[in-house]
Amino acid sequence: MADNPNCDLKSLSPLQLFQRVTEQGEKVRALKAGKAPKDEIDAAVRMLLSLKLSYKATTGQDYQAGLPPKDLVLINNGTNKEEDEDFVDPWTVQTSNAKGVDYDKLIVRFGSSKIDTDLINRIERATGQKPHRFLRRGIFFSHRDMDQILDAYENKKSFYLYTGRGPSSQAMHVGHLIPFIFTKWLQEVFDVPLIIQLTDDEKYLWKDLTTEKAYEYARENAKDIIACGFDINKTFIFSDLDYLGTSTGFYKNIVKVQKHVTFNQVKGIFGFTDSDCIGKISFPAIQAAPSFSSSFPQIFNGKENIQCLIPCAIDQDPYFRMTRDVAPRIGQPKPALLHSVFFPALQGAQTKMSASDPNSSIFLTDTPKQIKTKINKHAFSGGRDTIEEHRKYGGNCDVDVSFMYLTFFLEDDDRLEQLKQAYTSGELLTGELKKVLIETLQPLIAAHQERRKQVTDEIVKQFMTPRKLAFEF
Amino acid sequence: MADNPNCDLKSLSPLQLFQRVTEQGEKVRALKAGKAPKDEIDAAVRMLLSLKLSYKATTGQDYQAGLPPKDLVLINNGTNKEEDEDFVDPWTVQTSNAKGVDYDKLIVRFGSSKIDTDLINRIERATGQKPHRFLRRGIFFSHRDMDQILDAYENKKSFYLYTGRGPSSQAMHVGHLIPFIFTKWLQEVFDVPLIIQLTDDEKYLWKDLTTEKAYEYARENAKDIIACGFDINKTFIFSDLDYLGTSTGFYKNIVKVQKHVTFNQVKGIFGFTDSDCIGKISFPAIQAAPSFSSSFPQIFNGKENIQCLIPCAIDQDPYFRMTRDVAPRIGQPKPALLHSVFFPALQGAQTKMSASDPNSSIFLTDTPKQIKTKINKHAFSGGRDTIEEHRKYGGNCDVDVSFMYLTFFLEDDDRLEQLKQAYTSGELLTGELKKVLIETLQPLIAAHQERRKQVTDEIVKQFMTPRKLAFEF
Repeated sequence: MADNPNCDLKSLSPLQLFQRVTEQGEKVRALKAGKAPKDEIDAAVRMLLSLKLSYKATTGQDYQAGLPPKDLVLINNGTNKEEDEDFVDPWTVQTSNAKGVDYDKLIVRFGSSKIDTDLINRIERATGQKPHRFLRRGIFFSHRDMDQILDAYENKKSFYLYTGRGPSSQAMHVGHLIPFIFTKWLQEVFDVPLIIQLTDDEKYLWKDLTTEKAYEYARENAKDIIACGFDINKTFIFSDLDYLGTSTGFYKNIVKVQKHVTFNQVKGIFGFTDSDCIGKISFPAIQAAPSFSSSFPQIFNGKENIQCLIPCAIDQDPYFRMTRDVAPRIGQPKPALLHSVFFPALQGAQTKMSASDPNSSIFLTDTPKQIKTKINKHAFSGGRDTIEEHRKYGGNCDVDVSFMYLTFFLEDDDRLEQLKQAYTSGELLTGELKKVLIETLQPLIAAHQERRKQVTDEIVKQFMTPRKLAFEF
Repeated sequence: MADNPNCDLKSLSPLQLFQRVTEQGEKVRALKAGKAPKDEIDAAVRMLLSLKLSYKATTGQDYQAGLPPKDLVLINNGTNKEEDEDFVDPWTVQTSNAKGVDYDKLIVRFGSSKIDTDLINRIERATGQKPHRFLRRGIFFSHRDMDQILDAYENKKSFYLYTGRGPSSQAMHVGHLIPFIFTKWLQEVFDVPLIIQLTDDEKYLWKDLTTEKAYEYARENAKDIIACGFDINKTFIFSDLDYLGTSTGFYKNIVKVQKHVTFNQVKGIFGFTDSDCIGKISFPAIQAAPSFSSSFPQIFNGKENIQCLIPCAIDQDPYFRMTRDVAPRIGQPKPALLHSVFFPALQGAQTKMSASDPNSSIFLTDTPKQIKTKINKHAFSGGRDTIEEHRKYGGNCDVDVSFMYLTFFLEDDDRLEQLKQAYTSGELLTGELKKVLIETLQPLIAAHQERRKQVTDEIVKQFMTPRKLAFEF
């Protein structure tokens, strides 16, 4: 064992680090028991603390003697090097790969299924509609039981959609729209009702916010969500802080889920520790419960056991793996899922965007000028250092954020392919590619802002009022 | 250290046991590291397991390396012998002393205050009423901040009462009435509103019950509670499963409490383990929230920060110690408390009565004949083995269950004192004392049954409807 505990820690797996902390703890005890010189004990204690910090940084959990690291959804990309590991949970997405998280590995690790061409073709046949670009381009890439949804749908058995958002601030960025854009498309092509949960209670529990502020954010975010164009007759949006106190069915399902999930389980799934508040520990049940139609007696006219389909970013999957595990034990159908990739930050695909860093993303409130400046200044480029090199070797679309954003927002497949080839060949320069993105996003965001202006408080109130939706099951 | 780990374990404190487990664990590791013979390692491992079992039996918690035993409300009656320890938490009350739990020790351990003659006199002055027999006889024996309630009351500042019941079965026994009899008296003499929580969600979480069954028990229990004579204009009774979904204020207070209590804290207070479901872990917040008037916007006309006084059996105190710890951190007043002793089982004061053992108590549905038979057959006697001995040495009122029951239900102080002297002197025989109890309880229970018959479903519905109570603050 090297004397400097940090020199080789990055190459250690969580389990190896755990063993190093344990060994060092024993060494400290032995030194103390043997009444070793104070400076020797101090050095050993410092090393122990350093090892514990490394352990926490790697696993996201405090070291606990006798408790080896739990299933942390820690993705290992084939080597033991820390810099190659992807970390994905509902609060943290980290990868060191500029191409972003390795989603194929995530499918294996999460035990979900890839959305393949067969499934996309089947969706096209069932709905009679061209698959959304998010399907065509692998942006929604993974699913659970989507084939069963289609089996039932083809037999005239319908379902409902459920998605959500944690309203951590007033400002939403374009990445936040991805699940809503796709959900709107699903609502249209399948003609089904939709439930949107705003987890203002979660944000109150996790952030330094009052309940009032969290609820205010929920209502502001609802405006941006409504501006995506959801059908008011088929969509119910709710804040947890508000709806929990007005629904006769929601709390009953929450407590049923809470009875069937132990602390050990949420510790394993979400990495909670003994120092976490009991609100965090029990919150997963609150995100689980809208998967069951009996949580919405007013909405579904008291009808229970309607199948649920959840479109969401893959980082939310841990909640729904837990939900699917509990569902049969409380006599409810398992929700099906469609998972999306993460929307990259302007600075690169290594992390999710952050609403708290204004330069990490394009916000829905940005002016055309701000959009232009942000893309030109901050969008990570896969181009070469000089024009000459770029012309000679071409750019790299796999890591170029402007190109990634275009795969999300440029509808025309042919145009996207042309841009890819031109950029890869070096014919198209970074500045030119950025210009295409700017010209794509500016009108999209201006139109969103225009629609949002039409969303009055009265309209928000209507969307957020529990009521029977225009749908018969 | 003895080779047989069990020979002296009973004399060890939880902390000593913890140290023994830790040492044994280190011994096992050392043997393994030193590649000791297999049978030597096996013997050490067996001893380790045995020590861990003893640790769990004593503390109710699994041994966790590095985590010494928490504050378990383990009362030690002056010696180190396990058989002399009282154990009190919301689910278990155990003492080996036939006189019952040592309540003076409980006051010291819980950090509450004794209800002394001065306080009783002050209540008499403030209300102008003779103190209830439960106060005169030390049945409500402990309090928190009752002096502050009286300070405010004397300055025309009022408060509200909050008590509750976990509806684990349809059958309630006379012991269950104690807090309600006393609360009714408090409501009358102070003229204040009252909130009664029926924790059907708790019973669903802890027992093998459906939510529907738990709610049915709540409504049935409400009938017995209403039959105690509460003022319908000043009393709101609610089931958690029902009210949580109809109140705009209750969930907000629950989530506020849940944000300010960690798993470590509920582990220490309630002895929860990692294997407990997240519903149990977060439940204490649901029992805490009715301590805050903002949980009842309809009842108190939106008025917040009204002082709360909670009459309850002392085993419920852990919930409210937690509540009082959280209250100032969420901008709410600490609730005050009045604690009662436990109502003894017919078989003796060692345990609380159990609704699941029909012979452990007098039920509110018992016929006069059943009451007579149960008392004659099962009431533990403090009398002597033969009439001759009894006449010579006298009976022991401290352990005689019939006498204990009379202290709860016989209103006449002089008569009670006469009975005590006659029984202690040997003049009164056990059969004669039992006859007095039978003749006291039969009419009380018959009258209760008569009143309960008058409680229609419509009346229950009125009590359980959130509405403004006839009271101005």
